[in-house]
Amino acid sequence: MKPDPKSQERHAWRMAKKQEIMRERIANADKDQGVLLVLTGPGKGKSSSGFGMVARALGHGMKVGVVQFIKGAFSTGEEAFFRDLPNVDYHVMGEGYTWDTQDRERDVAAANAAWDIAAKMLKDDRYDLVLLDELNIALRYEYLDLDRVLDDLQNRPAMQHAVVTGRYAPKELIELADTVTEMKVVKHAFKDQGVRAQKGIEL
Amino acid sequence: MKPDPKSQERHAWRMAKKQEIMRERIANADKDQGVLLVLTGPGKGKSSSGFGMVARALGHGMKVGVVQFIKGAFSTGEEAFFRDLPNVDYHVMGEGYTWDTQDRERDVAAANAAWDIAAKMLKDDRYDLVLLDELNIALRYEYLDLDRVLDDLQNRPAMQHAVVTGRYAPKELIELADTVTEMKVVKHAFKDQGVRAQKGIEL
Repeated sequence: MKPDPKSQERHAWRMAKKQEIMRERIANADKDQGVLLVLTGPGKGKSSSGFGMVARALGHGMKVGVVQFIKGAFSTGEEAFFRDLPNVDYHVMGEGYTWDTQDRERDVAAANAAWDIAAKMLKDDRYDLVLLDELNIALRYEYLDLDRVLDDLQNRPAMQHAVVTGRYAPKELIELADTVTEMKVVKHAFKDQGVRAQKGIEL
Repeated sequence: MKPDPKSQERHAWRMAKKQEIMRERIANADKDQGVLLVLTGPGKGKSSSGFGMVARALGHGMKVGVVQFIKGAFSTGEEAFFRDLPNVDYHVMGEGYTWDTQDRERDVAAANAAWDIAAKMLKDDRYDLVLLDELNIALRYEYLDLDRVLDDLQNRPAMQHAVVTGRYAPKELIELADTVTEMKVVKHAFKDQGVRAQKGIEL
């Protein structure tokens, strides 16, 4: 079941709906509304920026959902910090991808199980902000159906913010998003200078 | 007392010292060490990325210092969230800059008082990470002596991480840094589309 993100019809429908939403927004520019934000590009700081927004939202007493479409099975500082806070529902995808065993079916199943949880959050207006960390990686490898992901994002509650991180955001997601930041590497100690990944900074 | 960041002599000395540090690092690439990270550029996510790193560090049980060289006097979500956590020392600069009254002397005094606190953190190896939020703005307006700032950053404890955020990072700071990310705007709901700044995302 290969996704067909280039389906013209689907794309036209989505863009028409977006145009309609934008017209409404411009008419109501003084009102609050949910924002779809994408943080992409090769530079450092995409996930940490998403988690900073989680902290900011919690500081405003908002309820937050986090789903991590992570690259590996290692436990990160942000998981340790956020996962047991009262206003946070935190889900980490299965055991991470199987870079070693290259069991694609297992990766697809794990990514889809994680998306099921994300999709529930995106239908639930009790969540003020949903962070989909490293989702772009799951899309890049076509572990998820892009149309399903875009539809669930577009149909979320009007007041809900969604933040998507990861390199290689697909252009359809960039089109759908309200705000997109691309992180550019100016230099990188970890890669350029032989410095190990550092706790608190990289992990 | 205008700073003279272009002082050739000072710059040569700093770069020589950096080269020495880099040689040591390459020789000890398997060891942990503090990283100086700069998050700059016009795109969204610089401060939130810094605060995400604060969360990550706290998740590892590290001690964190935060000094906000903020643009205004408004209270932000991240301040509400982080300021009373046990492993965080949080300082917000005076009452913000006087964009309205344009009292430059007052701004210089407020920025320097904030730097005094930052400088103490940068001399104290109990802090594992120091976040200097929007410091680049204070440097841009020459509220602070750039040489003093660079020296304090360079002379911090070897294991301490420092994270500097804000647009217009001066090139001398970029040279000194280990890792630099530039955030590029691809699109911005708030500016391009007449959408108000949103709690949890912008504030």
